[in-house]
Amino acid sequence: MSSAAANENCLGWAARDASGVLSPYKFSRRAVGKDDVSIKITHCGICYADVIWTRNKFGDCMYPVVPGHEIAGIVKEIGSNVERFKVGDHVGVGAFVDSCRDCEYCDDKLEIHCLKRAVGTYNAVDVDGTITKGGYSNSIVVQERYCYTIPESYPLASAAPLLCAGITVYTPMMRHKMNQAGKSLGVIGLGGLGHMAVKFGKAFGLNVTVLSTSISKREEALTLLGADKFVISSDQEQMAALAKSLDFIIDTASGDHPFDPYLSLLKTSGVLVLVGAPSEVKFSPLPLLLGRITVSGSTTGGTKETQEMINFCAAHGIHPNIEVIPIQYANEALERLIKSDVKYRFVIDIENSLK
Amino acid sequence: MSSAAANENCLGWAARDASGVLSPYKFSRRAVGKDDVSIKITHCGICYADVIWTRNKFGDCMYPVVPGHEIAGIVKEIGSNVERFKVGDHVGVGAFVDSCRDCEYCDDKLEIHCLKRAVGTYNAVDVDGTITKGGYSNSIVVQERYCYTIPESYPLASAAPLLCAGITVYTPMMRHKMNQAGKSLGVIGLGGLGHMAVKFGKAFGLNVTVLSTSISKREEALTLLGADKFVISSDQEQMAALAKSLDFIIDTASGDHPFDPYLSLLKTSGVLVLVGAPSEVKFSPLPLLLGRITVSGSTTGGTKETQEMINFCAAHGIHPNIEVIPIQYANEALERLIKSDVKYRFVIDIENSLK
Repeated sequence: MSSAAANENCLGWAARDASGVLSPYKFSRRAVGKDDVSIKITHCGICYADVIWTRNKFGDCMYPVVPGHEIAGIVKEIGSNVERFKVGDHVGVGAFVDSCRDCEYCDDKLEIHCLKRAVGTYNAVDVDGTITKGGYSNSIVVQERYCYTIPESYPLASAAPLLCAGITVYTPMMRHKMNQAGKSLGVIGLGGLGHMAVKFGKAFGLNVTVLSTSISKREEALTLLGADKFVISSDQEQMAALAKSLDFIIDTASGDHPFDPYLSLLKTSGVLVLVGAPSEVKFSPLPLLLGRITVSGSTTGGTKETQEMINFCAAHGIHPNIEVIPIQYANEALERLIKSDVKYRFVIDIENSLK
Repeated sequence: MSSAAANENCLGWAARDASGVLSPYKFSRRAVGKDDVSIKITHCGICYADVIWTRNKFGDCMYPVVPGHEIAGIVKEIGSNVERFKVGDHVGVGAFVDSCRDCEYCDDKLEIHCLKRAVGTYNAVDVDGTITKGGYSNSIVVQERYCYTIPESYPLASAAPLLCAGITVYTPMMRHKMNQAGKSLGVIGLGGLGHMAVKFGKAFGLNVTVLSTSISKREEALTLLGADKFVISSDQEQMAALAKSLDFIIDTASGDHPFDPYLSLLKTSGVLVLVGAPSEVKFSPLPLLLGRITVSGSTTGGTKETQEMINFCAAHGIHPNIEVIPIQYANEALERLIKSDVKYRFVIDIENSLK
């Protein structure tokens, strides 16, 4: 361990126990290795994962936990081998910061599915044996492979949510060929992921229907986000009118919900992709058998596709709708996120509030 | 209605009520229209659908029901417009005998998904308003589009089960790109469909594992059918050894069964295709989310693929394992089918027993 690493050279906010309450915490970032990029973090998005892994929902928290895996910032130092970045570049870091770089999935740039496990951006064991710490902090050191270029023209605050919310919906949309103009997409749930699915859908030329339990989201879905249609999923008449009309559904709902009503909306050969995490999935097999419907799922994407997605957003002027907050508001923001009280993503202004 | 249709020109065996008991029944086949092929039926396979739609399991039986949709025979007459067939040709008919021929699915030769509904080979309303009657009979008249060429070299008795069991597993295998030599396939259940999945899997160059609840099937699976591996699905140790090792699973089990143990066998991006019909499908979303696993389903295939499948079987010497029976044994055969007591498909020798 270098002498730099022995210093507490980084200021973050950490949860210390399952209460999940965040407070300032000093720790050390590793010295910049020859393949590393050191980043001054300017912004970090707040993902629901930050609730799960500060409150020990899966029982695997290694406190103190510094959350945050939607990281945007500016390169402040590079290792001697680094070729893709230079000091001053705008960059992002997503949900993972390392992988074996040697298995079939790493070879395919699907590092998140690395056979030896991708190293999570926080609450994971890093290559040096330390526990990774995320973007609720003012700097991070990352191997260049796991860094993404953010075009100068694209606001860093807007870039942050792309690194998890954005790529998590973009990846299955590309994998299941949803970028076919003229086809139809249903989006279940209108949070951080759902609102990005609507935006990508419109950019792909799809006819987008938002499926929501809450009429309060109607106006924004149609006007602000540009959806073509808004349907209350508990309204059987509206749902019946939509029967067998959709090519694709992105299901972002994390709460338990029935699947049969949504599967009935899909055309023959239709695809429903789960990106939320209900406790179980249960449905009648008939739509799958008779309509050869597919139910799939997805997590975040690999490095190649993440860069493509950022470039696509920059080229098409796709920006997440964000509420920028100071780090001092993070605890309240997490509480509001639990209540789905955010339109549509909190982004922490690290640069101006974490000092 | 022509005078020919007024005659009881066809002898079949029909169920008269929900007992499902079959007995001889005379009825009329329509006169041969200009696009029609009239077929002397030589063989008909017994599909589990014949149990469902003779015993009124779905409450939609229109008695008398003449079952049978795995039909093989010889052309005895053709209409004036028929181009693909001549008298004496060996032909087959599968699960449907008409469709609108005008919708997007018909255009794609996926007639079984016709927007106006494909007309089932039996117990469906035909174009002339009569109820279709299936292959437990000595002749049938079918529009040529819904007839398939059976190569002279391929036994008609073997061809019969291809028309439903064969195509029902071939279609999803092709759709989900399972014809990639060197990949691995799990087959759940070893009945009419399962044993064909093993044969196709081996012909595609896959490493095939049979997943069964019954050790009694082991020897035949490995020696007779040529599977590479046989695993008792209730044996947790064997199942654990197979974790994340399969690219594909074909699930032919119609009884209710857990899905989580099978999904745990799939590699990242793996696909499980349901072709059996349990009462519900239930699983944890985690394999879908973390491993981007896909669960899909399928019914029988369209006309283009059915012909391809028959040609593939002829070219690769793939023959279903059949037990040829006289029509007089049909009631007992259906009872045995319910008990899964068949290796692996009953085929009725119509030509020699139905007189």
